[in-house]
Amino acid sequence: MELWFTENQTASLRISVKASKVLEHRQTGYQELSVLETEPWGTMLALDGMIQTTERDEAAYHEMMVHVPLSTHPRPRRVAVIGGGDGGAIREVLKHPSVEQAVLVEIDPAVVEASRRWLPSLSSGLDDPRVQVVAADGRAYVQQAGQGDVPPFDVIVVDSTDPVRAAVGLFSEEFYRDVRGALAPGGILTAQTESPYLNRELLRQAFRAAAQVFPLARLYLTCVPTYPSGLWSFTLGSLGPDPLDPAGRGPEGSCRYYTPELHRAAFALPAFVTELIRP
Amino acid sequence: MELWFTENQTASLRISVKASKVLEHRQTGYQELSVLETEPWGTMLALDGMIQTTERDEAAYHEMMVHVPLSTHPRPRRVAVIGGGDGGAIREVLKHPSVEQAVLVEIDPAVVEASRRWLPSLSSGLDDPRVQVVAADGRAYVQQAGQGDVPPFDVIVVDSTDPVRAAVGLFSEEFYRDVRGALAPGGILTAQTESPYLNRELLRQAFRAAAQVFPLARLYLTCVPTYPSGLWSFTLGSLGPDPLDPAGRGPEGSCRYYTPELHRAAFALPAFVTELIRP
Repeated sequence: MELWFTENQTASLRISVKASKVLEHRQTGYQELSVLETEPWGTMLALDGMIQTTERDEAAYHEMMVHVPLSTHPRPRRVAVIGGGDGGAIREVLKHPSVEQAVLVEIDPAVVEASRRWLPSLSSGLDDPRVQVVAADGRAYVQQAGQGDVPPFDVIVVDSTDPVRAAVGLFSEEFYRDVRGALAPGGILTAQTESPYLNRELLRQAFRAAAQVFPLARLYLTCVPTYPSGLWSFTLGSLGPDPLDPAGRGPEGSCRYYTPELHRAAFALPAFVTELIRP
Repeated sequence: MELWFTENQTASLRISVKASKVLEHRQTGYQELSVLETEPWGTMLALDGMIQTTERDEAAYHEMMVHVPLSTHPRPRRVAVIGGGDGGAIREVLKHPSVEQAVLVEIDPAVVEASRRWLPSLSSGLDDPRVQVVAADGRAYVQQAGQGDVPPFDVIVVDSTDPVRAAVGLFSEEFYRDVRGALAPGGILTAQTESPYLNRELLRQAFRAAAQVFPLARLYLTCVPTYPSGLWSFTLGSLGPDPLDPAGRGPEGSCRYYTPELHRAAFALPAFVTELIRP
C-alpha cells in the first residue's frame, strides 16, 4: 500500500507527502487533527488537512518567529505564545536566559497532547518550570492580559493557524490593539502573516493593521518548504527597539536555522513584497 | 473536466498545479516538453515532467541568478548562459548596459521555440541584436570557449535542469574547470545548485568542486515556490571580485525580486546550510 497525504494549499495548488503511517487521526473539539510519519519530512502535524509543522523543516519557522523578536528586546522576561500548541515556539523562547515566564495560550488541548506524544523534539520545553500552558482563546486571553491577574508581556508571539475559524480574529487591527495593551513598555509583537505569493491581501491588511497600532512595524521572511509557496512572512510590531538594531543577546544553545546575520537579512525583502506592503 | 499537472519532485514528494489548458506537449530530440496554462502560476514550462519555469515565480530565480554575478563584476561585456532556453536569464542579462554580447547555449532548440511561442515575457530578449542563440551541448561549448573563435566571457551563468541526462556533467569539477578556462581575468561563474533540503549531497559536491576550482566560492539562496522545497541555491565562483562587495552598477530597469539589499542578504545562510558546505 502507498499512503499519500495531500493538502489542498489553495483551490489550484496541492502538495502530497508520502507517509509510512498514520499515528493519530481524530476530530477534536475544534478541528480535525492528524499526525503522520512521513518519508520526506519526518513526523508531521496537520490541522483540518493543513500542514502545521514537520520535524525536518520546523526550525525555519519557529526559530525565525521567536529569535528575531527575543533578540531584538534588550531583556525579555515574560513571553506569551498565542496558538503554537505543538510547543516549537516555546522551545525556542526558553533558549533566552532572561526569560522568567513563558505562557502558551492554545485553544485546543488536543494539539498539545498530540505534540507531547508524537513530537517530543518540539514539545520538550513544555515541562520546563518557567512554562505555563493555558487552554484558552488567544483573543480573550490577550484582552485580559496586562491588567489584574496577568502582568504584561515583553514579547507576544502569534503562532496561529491560517485565518480560518478560531484564527480569523488573530489577523485584525482590533486584536493587535489588544496585544499592544498586553505588552509592557518597549514590548514586541511578532505574528505569522502567511505567504506573499498566495495570501497577498491578507498579508497587506495584517501588516497595515500592525503599522496602525505600533509605532514601528517591519515585515520579515523565511522559507518553510511545507507551507504554501515556501516563502513565509512575519509581521513585527514594536513599542521600542528596532529589529534592525537588535538590543538583546540572542539565543543560547544551538540553532538549525537562525543566525544573527540571517536575522538582519530576513528584513531585505524582494521588490514585489516591498511593493505589496507600501502604504 | 479538472486538469491537474503533477510533478514527482522526489519519490516521496509531489506538487500538483491546476491547469486550464495544455498548450504544447511533445517529445523533442532530448526530452518531453510541456507547456500548460496554470491557474496559480500562469504559463508554465516543464521538461520531463519537472517544472522549469512559470510566469509568476520565475523572477525569484532568474533575477537572483543573473543580477548577483553581473552586479558583482565591474563591467561585464560578454556573458554566456548555459541552458536556460526559456530566455529568462538572457532577458535579465540585457538589463546591464555594459553587456555587448550575450550567448545562449541551449542544447534543445525545441525549448527556445516553445518559449518564443508561449512565454514572450521570458523570451522577449532573444531577438535583441546583442544576443546569439547557439544550439549546442554546454560542456562542449565551454571546452572550446576562451580559445580560437570564441573569446572568453566575463560571466558564465549555468541555468541547467536537474542533474539528469544531458545536465549531469554540469555539476562536476571537470566542468567548472572548463568554465574557468572560458572566463576572462576577473570572470565569474554562477550555477544553480539545487535545494539544500532535498539535494544535500549534490549541493555539497557541486559547491566543493567550485571551491576547488575558483579562488573564491560563495553560496547564496533564493526562494522559488514551484521548485522542490522552495529554498534554492546558487554557487558563485569568482576569479576576481567578491559578491559581498559588488563592483558593478546593478541592473537598469525594473526588477520584481532582486534589490541590492537582497543581493547581500542572499549570502546570509541558514545554520544548516553553512554546516552542509563546511569544508
